[in-house]
Amino acid sequence: MYKLYYAPGTCALASHIALEEAGADYKAERLDFKANQQQSKEYLAINPKGRVPALVTDRGILTENPAILAYIAQTFPKAKLAPLDDPFAFAQMQSFNSYLCATVHVAHAHKGRGARWASEESSFADMKRMVPKSVSAAVGLIEKGMLKGPWVMGEQYTVCDPYLYTIALWLEGDSVDLKTLPRVADHMKRMSERPAVQKVIGEQQAKAA
Amino acid sequence: MYKLYYAPGTCALASHIALEEAGADYKAERLDFKANQQQSKEYLAINPKGRVPALVTDRGILTENPAILAYIAQTFPKAKLAPLDDPFAFAQMQSFNSYLCATVHVAHAHKGRGARWASEESSFADMKRMVPKSVSAAVGLIEKGMLKGPWVMGEQYTVCDPYLYTIALWLEGDSVDLKTLPRVADHMKRMSERPAVQKVIGEQQAKAA
Repeated sequence: MYKLYYAPGTCALASHIALEEAGADYKAERLDFKANQQQSKEYLAINPKGRVPALVTDRGILTENPAILAYIAQTFPKAKLAPLDDPFAFAQMQSFNSYLCATVHVAHAHKGRGARWASEESSFADMKRMVPKSVSAAVGLIEKGMLKGPWVMGEQYTVCDPYLYTIALWLEGDSVDLKTLPRVADHMKRMSERPAVQKVIGEQQAKAA
Repeated sequence: MYKLYYAPGTCALASHIALEEAGADYKAERLDFKANQQQSKEYLAINPKGRVPALVTDRGILTENPAILAYIAQTFPKAKLAPLDDPFAFAQMQSFNSYLCATVHVAHAHKGRGARWASEESSFADMKRMVPKSVSAAVGLIEKGMLKGPWVMGEQYTVCDPYLYTIALWLEGDSVDLKTLPRVADHMKRMSERPAVQKVIGEQQAKAA
């Protein structure tokens, strides 16, 4: 049985949905970010980075969404969550996830996590002001071509889809106008109709209440 | 034949070394970042992100180091650049590469690429001041445990190694004291002795001169 550490509102949602879509036997363990539980001694022993997601497996602990997502896809091949037999298509999937992780998520993180990269209040305010523009530009490339439709990779639903959905949920809070991103908005709607997504969102919100 | 777009001093070095280690038939195509060639109309048609690396294959173009590195490893299995038959070990490798891409590289990028995330000179200066601390902390986790030794994944040399080496080459310029990172420094030395690394570095420097 897997155990996934997550916090509501974080990128761990992507791995959580992927586990559900895969039909994995797992338990979701909520961390209280308001109490800074991700920096507790107990959690740092699990993930020294003090972040989520962290996936506990019988072989050890995995971190970083792109790695966990590909791992879930490879470990549950029947769920067909990745083009496992085509290294080029697999690399395209990975490229998309890497872009979400290192560019889109990072742009978003400058809204509330500026202390990772600067120390002055004026810098944090400057960073926050840039977020609508930088996130819009980053997601704009997805809108303009990376999202093939109906799913990210085309006809096949893959682990790219819950990851894009997770980050798209932040767009409104980042003051990005979803009307400028109709294909991303359409993808969000399609994702929100999936039973696995509804189940996971419901579970995270119920626990968070 | 593959074509790799790179610029000297960038993270594209990781994919360049991996192609060389794999014994791939490839051509390395240098971009002039000083002339902002990565933002030229011609290059944006290849990689709309305006970044390197970009790998042109007979199936299409791939971007993002973690995706390209895993692709090279999967496409050249005889080179044994990844634990291809063990999804958990493969995920550990991917987790390491994702961390380099989204955390270590991003921390470093705040030295010279602050305009991605802020707009004021005072913010850029603040970001620059933070780089030695944020990069040290990020690479500190590698020093303390993620780097198993002698190679990142242990006895097997993988695509994690050229990627770590590439980023480690930036540490001195980031004012990070390598004496505080003896295992990373030792890894750099071991990497610098590999013929493939020497060949690629020589080629990039010759073209850059």
